[in-house]
Amino acid sequence: METNNKDLHAELVVNKMMEKDLFSQWLGIRVLEVKEGYSRIAMEIRAEMINGFGVIHGGVCFSLADSAFAFACNNRNNLSMALDTSINFLKPTYPGDILTAEAKELHNGRTTGLYLVTIFNQHQQQVALFKGTCFRTGRNLI
Amino acid sequence: METNNKDLHAELVVNKMMEKDLFSQWLGIRVLEVKEGYSRIAMEIRAEMINGFGVIHGGVCFSLADSAFAFACNNRNNLSMALDTSINFLKPTYPGDILTAEAKELHNGRTTGLYLVTIFNQHQQQVALFKGTCFRTGRNLI
Amino acid sequence: METNNKDLHAELVVNKMMEKDLFSQWLGIRVLEVKEGYSRIAMEIRAEMINGFGVIHGGVCFSLADSAFAFACNNRNNLSMALDTSINFLKPTYPGDILTAEAKELHNGRTTGLYLVTIFNQHQQQVALFKGTCFRTGRNLI
Amino acid sequence: METNNKDLHAELVVNKMMEKDLFSQWLGIRVLEVKEGYSRIAMEIRAEMINGFGVIHGGVCFSLADSAFAFACNNRNNLSMALDTSINFLKPTYPGDILTAEAKELHNGRTTGLYLVTIFNQHQQQVALFKGTCFRTGRNLI
Repeated sequence: METNNKDLHAELVVNKMMEKDLFSQWLGIRVLEVKEGYSRIAMEIRAEMINGFGVIHGGVCFSLADSAFAFACNNRNNLSMALDTSINFLKPTYPGDILTAEAKELHNGRTTGLYLVTIFNQHQQQVALFKGTCFRTGRNLI
Repeated sequence: METNNKDLHAELVVNKMMEKDLFSQWLGIRVLEVKEGYSRIAMEIRAEMINGFGVIHGGVCFSLADSAFAFACNNRNNLSMALDTSINFLKPTYPGDILTAEAKELHNGRTTGLYLVTIFNQHQQQVALFKGTCFRTGRNLI
Repeated sequence: METNNKDLHAELVVNKMMEKDLFSQWLGIRVLEVKEGYSRIAMEIRAEMINGFGVIHGGVCFSLADSAFAFACNNRNNLSMALDTSINFLKPTYPGDILTAEAKELHNGRTTGLYLVTIFNQHQQQVALFKGTCFRTGRNLI
Repeated sequence: METNNKDLHAELVVNKMMEKDLFSQWLGIRVLEVKEGYSRIAMEIRAEMINGFGVIHGGVCFSLADSAFAFACNNRNNLSMALDTSINFLKPTYPGDILTAEAKELHNGRTTGLYLVTIFNQHQQQVALFKGTCFRTGRNLI
């Protein structure tokens, strides 16, 4: 079963990454699903994650998307580095909200890759859109 | 002295923002300089801020830039919301590094604004470039 | 039939825009489909549209996407201005290729909007991805 | 004189590119200055370059910036391909306006590069800001 083996391997890579990823751990990120070039992760917003306006700090939202991106673009065991990333904020979120980030691969090139990450709140409303371009180093992670 | 008064007022706005900005406080951000449409802030990378590769999590770097952006684009006391932001990562950084982010205004429109934030390490090497577009609501912060 | 009327009105707005859009005319853009917040357009790459490497100039590809974006984000008859746009190039294209751009609305806010435009070649391969944020002025086009 | 030789070589590369760049020729682009990792070019907006609102089509503005980017990032004779590019529009421009684009190198990595291009009108007002990330292939142009 080719596909399942690839997805299992992708999961192993992400588990290894998550083990050492202290900031994703601080954020409380849980990995929900991993497939080749794909990831879906979630976290709950805590009081200490707000900015001066009482809503989630943009950097926390970006961090969730960036972790989903990293888990998707590295999971073929080809170490990839973020080059250019962007995020659009569509809706404010608040402490207690549960955010889910889903990373999808739009392009898997030999030397570069392109991913879109959509962040939803617990009401399935889209709260942010992230786009990430990575460079593939060709080195293994595990 | 018109200019000094404006800059003093800008500082008051940022102090007020920073007081309630719990995530910037968690990051250990210190405000170094504030002028109308401008801010310069710094932080030290701690061990808990790394990703699965042992370097700073992209989200932490983005968060620093996003705070500098917020302190620059809101400090005329015109509440402004981030619309589209992007960041390019140029050099990895590590626990113990001191990062400084400088936000400069490229455009101050009635309804929108454009800002560039450059992040340097303690060796004055440029480690990231952030670009932020904001929408001005016309509401006061203080 | 509420929906059809809205889509018909969207078509009227785009027809009016296209009539005066001399550069889209020079590109040879044909409007294939218009719905509220949506557009699909196409063009053929001509010899005079190449860059120094013999492939389509990035600006021509961007122009096609930008027209699709404009036709999608303005067609509720609410004059909207592009703020921040970005494009990723995934595959080179050549004179004789037929490019289709499809613009989809991701967010329709009162003051801003977010759109993704995908460009395909005649083999249904994705050649570029465009993201556009616009500001809504509240003024009518027709 | 090391530096002059490098800049002269950069000029040779750009001349070669420009010779075959039919779309930049159609735009009427004139190369004003080329140095290693740098270019400055200009064009005049013609009537056929407007969009449906009577101002310059965003794609024409992008094209000028994209050519400046290409002339800057390729001129070390290392063939480089645009990955992710973005542009912010700050001020509308009209037929008869003269636009100048200046491309500066922010990062010259072994495999990637980052450039900012600023577009000015004839009144030295900044009308657009472009950011470009490229991938270096290692192949020669001339």
